[in-house]
Amino acid sequence: MLKDYLTANQQRHLSELLDLLRIPSVSTDPTRQGEVRRAAEFVVGKLAELRFEVQLFETPRHPVVVAHYRVSDSAPTVLIYGHYDVQPPEPLDLWISPPFEPVVENGLIVARGASDDKGQLYAHIKGVEALLATTGTLPVNLTFLIEGEEEIGSPNLTPLIEAHREQLAADIVLISDGAMVAPDTPTITYGLRGLAYVEVLVRGAGRDLHSGAYGGGAPNAINALAKIIAQLHNEQGRVTVPGFYDAVLELTDTEREAFRQVPFDEAHFKREAGLAATPGEAGYSLLERLWARPTLDCNGIGGGFQGDGAKTVIAAEARAKISCRLVPNQDPHDITAKLAAHLKRLAPPGVEVTVTELHGALPAVLRACAAGPLEAPAVQVAARALATVFGRPAVFARTGGTIPVVSTFQELLGAQVVMVGLGLESDKVHSPNEKFDLVNYYRGIEVSTALLAAFADMP
Amino acid sequence: MLKDYLTANQQRHLSELLDLLRIPSVSTDPTRQGEVRRAAEFVVGKLAELRFEVQLFETPRHPVVVAHYRVSDSAPTVLIYGHYDVQPPEPLDLWISPPFEPVVENGLIVARGASDDKGQLYAHIKGVEALLATTGTLPVNLTFLIEGEEEIGSPNLTPLIEAHREQLAADIVLISDGAMVAPDTPTITYGLRGLAYVEVLVRGAGRDLHSGAYGGGAPNAINALAKIIAQLHNEQGRVTVPGFYDAVLELTDTEREAFRQVPFDEAHFKREAGLAATPGEAGYSLLERLWARPTLDCNGIGGGFQGDGAKTVIAAEARAKISCRLVPNQDPHDITAKLAAHLKRLAPPGVEVTVTELHGALPAVLRACAAGPLEAPAVQVAARALATVFGRPAVFARTGGTIPVVSTFQELLGAQVVMVGLGLESDKVHSPNEKFDLVNYYRGIEVSTALLAAFADMP
Repeated sequence: MLKDYLTANQQRHLSELLDLLRIPSVSTDPTRQGEVRRAAEFVVGKLAELRFEVQLFETPRHPVVVAHYRVSDSAPTVLIYGHYDVQPPEPLDLWISPPFEPVVENGLIVARGASDDKGQLYAHIKGVEALLATTGTLPVNLTFLIEGEEEIGSPNLTPLIEAHREQLAADIVLISDGAMVAPDTPTITYGLRGLAYVEVLVRGAGRDLHSGAYGGGAPNAINALAKIIAQLHNEQGRVTVPGFYDAVLELTDTEREAFRQVPFDEAHFKREAGLAATPGEAGYSLLERLWARPTLDCNGIGGGFQGDGAKTVIAAEARAKISCRLVPNQDPHDITAKLAAHLKRLAPPGVEVTVTELHGALPAVLRACAAGPLEAPAVQVAARALATVFGRPAVFARTGGTIPVVSTFQELLGAQVVMVGLGLESDKVHSPNEKFDLVNYYRGIEVSTALLAAFADMP
Repeated sequence: MLKDYLTANQQRHLSELLDLLRIPSVSTDPTRQGEVRRAAEFVVGKLAELRFEVQLFETPRHPVVVAHYRVSDSAPTVLIYGHYDVQPPEPLDLWISPPFEPVVENGLIVARGASDDKGQLYAHIKGVEALLATTGTLPVNLTFLIEGEEEIGSPNLTPLIEAHREQLAADIVLISDGAMVAPDTPTITYGLRGLAYVEVLVRGAGRDLHSGAYGGGAPNAINALAKIIAQLHNEQGRVTVPGFYDAVLELTDTEREAFRQVPFDEAHFKREAGLAATPGEAGYSLLERLWARPTLDCNGIGGGFQGDGAKTVIAAEARAKISCRLVPNQDPHDITAKLAAHLKRLAPPGVEVTVTELHGALPAVLRACAAGPLEAPAVQVAARALATVFGRPAVFARTGGTIPVVSTFQELLGAQVVMVGLGLESDKVHSPNEKFDLVNYYRGIEVSTALLAAFADMP
């Protein structure tokens, strides 16, 4: 009956999504302020039609949609997070069709926001519609939390969650704002990395010096900075900051095995990024290094003469941006302090090192039960639901990036966070010709119904 | 009479120099091509007024001024070399007044080129003017050779000298493009360092990568470059390029003793340049390291995100400018080749290193007579003339800088080269707020007259 309903309503489900995609809700663009609000109101309207109790929370910039459907005190509460804003479409000349005039062709929906995140978000709204239409109710208490500032770093979301933590309390937070690890591969993403980001300034001489007059008798800020950076990794590719690995949660055997099951195409990974090698920490597989090991990378460096040609200067100053990707349970403030102390300790004679904290974000894994994160009930239940829809077992992934709001959900709401990406890595999110496969949209709707039903039975 | 003339004309001599300093003749900057030519034409005009026979030789880039004043077949011929081009003024925000709007304050002329080399060059032109005005002639046959490419390595000067070696033939080449070892200390500089200057480009990934998605599995061009640079010196501060020291001429005992006689104020050196330490090659005094030992310094570095704030990027490319100060008898092409090979050898897995030669210059010491470089007649005669003007004996020094053409003068013209710096080490040449002391400008004019008179009597 659910399947029949989904089949019967495919055309309408698609045309409603296309309506949403036609709204150019570019959150970073001040001239689109009204359009961004129009997208919020579109979502409000659709949820109100489904008899959700809907509120539009104003923020200093773009509003947040909060909608509740309460069925019973004994049912678990699920919060679905998504965002209705999109990235800027530029460069426009690389689009094969205008970014806000969606085209459906060859099984693809092509439009800005098709995958990130309107398509994935709307799949959940239509999944809920299908459950309501076919059963007259929902299997869980449901909250939608839909923001319009994800693409500009969610500056107003955490304060809002903090201010309404009781209203937003949930057992499970479900997020679909990502990708499966491969086509037709049900994927549960259960871990993220955090971030500690600093700027280091090395001061040598009191001013820029002539390399002829002073070379051989003056500290060189650039050489000193290079020497410092070079000592941040050892021969095994491990970060040398004392205490850096102290809080690192090692992968469980189950997780390592789960990573080995991921259909990860290393040749494709290298080809796509133009990599001749994938150097990193010894003793870990590439996926383990990308998803579950902390790293240190220079993100920028500058000093001395960078123009064309030759200038024979010994620079007084050089600076670098250095960031660490963190993994549970590393704390960004702790790592920043340890890194800063280490950088200062490495300063060669005659130079002074200053370290400025730029920003940090907590890493997150699903709050583990004693056996490990994959044994968490929400993960197990979601995995079974996905396996049923896809007809093949789910794989468990982490991701190397940071989604700051995930740790907020865990910390403030006490929720278990389950991330189920409905898109593909090839969806060109943030790029021209963003797309979402029709099959992934329709299957996403079905996934939503299956997940919500499964969460109702969670032990 | 000469003294009266010099006193009477001080104000005009100053204002003419300021006119020259107003011309932003930055030879490395393609957008300044016209300004560089304007500086050449300014010099041409001044020498033509003095009845020199002036020619402007075109080169592929900036023209060379050649001017002759011939008095007699029996008189010796002196060639005064200087340059009318200047270093780039950047960073502009550190200048207390705009670099090409000269300011005269507290006895200092502040402007780019005030000391290097417009002020020193123009002191000679005004010395010649004074001799002509007060005696109606000159004591020697005189040639000015004034180029506009000194700050970019004089790429076109040697071919020009080669092509006109008979016209440019001289007994003595007099150069004022440097500094006294201390204020009020007449200094004859008999040795120079050379230069080998390269740019190194490190390529890692095929494009800039997201540090979350790729960190731990992608080569980082900046970290790789830092690692390469850090390995260019060993713990003793010696350059690790294989064969780097093979051709180095060690100092004689006499020279080491002469260096010990130099009134070099190490505390002042450190204070003036803002140095907390003077690190360098172990086993050599500071002056020996600055004047007679080869070095390696990074002159610039850049890569990744250098703006304000944080960007989580793994840069595909990073580059550095690296130069070596060379000493006799190191050859810049040989050292460049060895350095390039070494840099490539040091490339960590996954990155590609490209090295581009930017420029090189031969080091030089004055052609020694059997007894040693300090006994050459031109040196002895110049020393006596300087002692008369300053009222104290001249000291003999080398300098850490490079004047590429000096070795050319020795090789092609068979001339004795005498370097008499009129500026000070504290003149901030190549740095913001370059200055030239008024007293050194005016005394420089007098030194010029005294040297030319002395050379007429050379045995």
